[in-house]
Amino acid sequence: MHPTAPYQLYYWPGIQGRGEFVRLALEAAGVAYVDVARRRGERGMEAMLASLDGAVTAHPSFAPPVLRAGELLIGQTANILQFLGARHGLAPRAQQGRLWANQLQLTIADIVNEVHDCHHPLSTNLYYEQQQPAARTRAADFTARRLPKYLGYFEGVLVHNPARGNHAVGGRLSYVDLSLFQLVAGLRYAFPNAMARQQQAWPRLLALHDSVAARPRIAAYLKSARRLPFNEDGIFRHYPELDR
Amino acid sequence: MHPTAPYQLYYWPGIQGRGEFVRLALEAAGVAYVDVARRRGERGMEAMLASLDGAVTAHPSFAPPVLRAGELLIGQTANILQFLGARHGLAPRAQQGRLWANQLQLTIADIVNEVHDCHHPLSTNLYYEQQQPAARTRAADFTARRLPKYLGYFEGVLVHNPARGNHAVGGRLSYVDLSLFQLVAGLRYAFPNAMARQQQAWPRLLALHDSVAARPRIAAYLKSARRLPFNEDGIFRHYPELDR
Repeated sequence: MHPTAPYQLYYWPGIQGRGEFVRLALEAAGVAYVDVARRRGERGMEAMLASLDGAVTAHPSFAPPVLRAGELLIGQTANILQFLGARHGLAPRAQQGRLWANQLQLTIADIVNEVHDCHHPLSTNLYYEQQQPAARTRAADFTARRLPKYLGYFEGVLVHNPARGNHAVGGRLSYVDLSLFQLVAGLRYAFPNAMARQQQAWPRLLALHDSVAARPRIAAYLKSARRLPFNEDGIFRHYPELDR
Repeated sequence: MHPTAPYQLYYWPGIQGRGEFVRLALEAAGVAYVDVARRRGERGMEAMLASLDGAVTAHPSFAPPVLRAGELLIGQTANILQFLGARHGLAPRAQQGRLWANQLQLTIADIVNEVHDCHHPLSTNLYYEQQQPAARTRAADFTARRLPKYLGYFEGVLVHNPARGNHAVGGRLSYVDLSLFQLVAGLRYAFPNAMARQQQAWPRLLALHDSVAARPRIAAYLKSARRLPFNEDGIFRHYPELDR
């Protein structure tokens, strides 16, 4: 237990998932946090599940990730990032920039949902293996049509940003850059063939991925045990049959 | 053209869709707005599509709805509602309440996405009729498992709100209440059997639906030609075979 850590993150212990977008912001901010469900022998899972329980907490979340910051208990990834961005200089201060960052983050949330539905197109209550034919159809559509539409959109955002430095919003690092890094990393893990085939269409986006990965705090995090590997329980899953 | 209207809404002209959550907020606030793509003979669709075009606008949206407010061009439904809520007293002023409202709105966005995927589980580039068997499987899972999980969650939010008045957030109307009204109305249109079967589980939520519908500005809107009917081009579609 780190009773002095300003933040507690509640998320499933074995996957990057949506929690990873929050972890990256906390790591880039350089603030201490406890990844509650990953603590050993301290009933971390119980504490995580309590954050979803209306009988225990006034503001229960429908699903993790959930962040505790003192008296505040905050759910929904984009909501947490908006909060952390304002607190730690990972978002513009002016209204227009804040709105734009939140808008882009919500668009990242949309593609992340679509990535999830590639392996679970019919039901989250069935295993992947029980919906594989539908998953093939959905993933083929995703890699051929949706993925290039989304990444082309984000490439355009970078191209049209008048500020220098190849950031999504303004001229400084924001949580949107961190999330775009994670999106590219995850898509490369899940769909290496589709990404390799199309990558020349997104030079700015891939350069942003590399520049985020090279930032000292992020590079240290990615080498640490705090960074879980991608796996087939998370959102970005590599099933070769979905990436012909 | 209403050159003095403070807001221009860019959304598809023939459907309620996600634009309806924004329309309800504008109507409840009692502010003038132009529903741009629905203007006759004024190239409304062209203007709407320009809001998505990075060659024309600095902050293009990936998809509508988009709201113009003077110099600001704002995309993503929850982002627009957060903006309007703060401006027009449709959200709490204090940080904790603002975060909670945004969190609930993002959870509404999640179930709305799942409603959409009931009729389009495999691809947004195919017609419903081309993915009907998969749609039946997805809709059966949605109505049996996901719908009660989400609506039970929102019922709990209302039950556990310590303030009086049966509102989602605090003791006053917020954009979350308006969106919950639209969610219930849409689900009743799309899945009347599933909703009738389960409705006794959500007395607070259904009472909130009725109280929002009875508010003078909302009641006047619902009777007006500005309120489009539900139809099978929107998000909430009624296909009897998906609602056994």
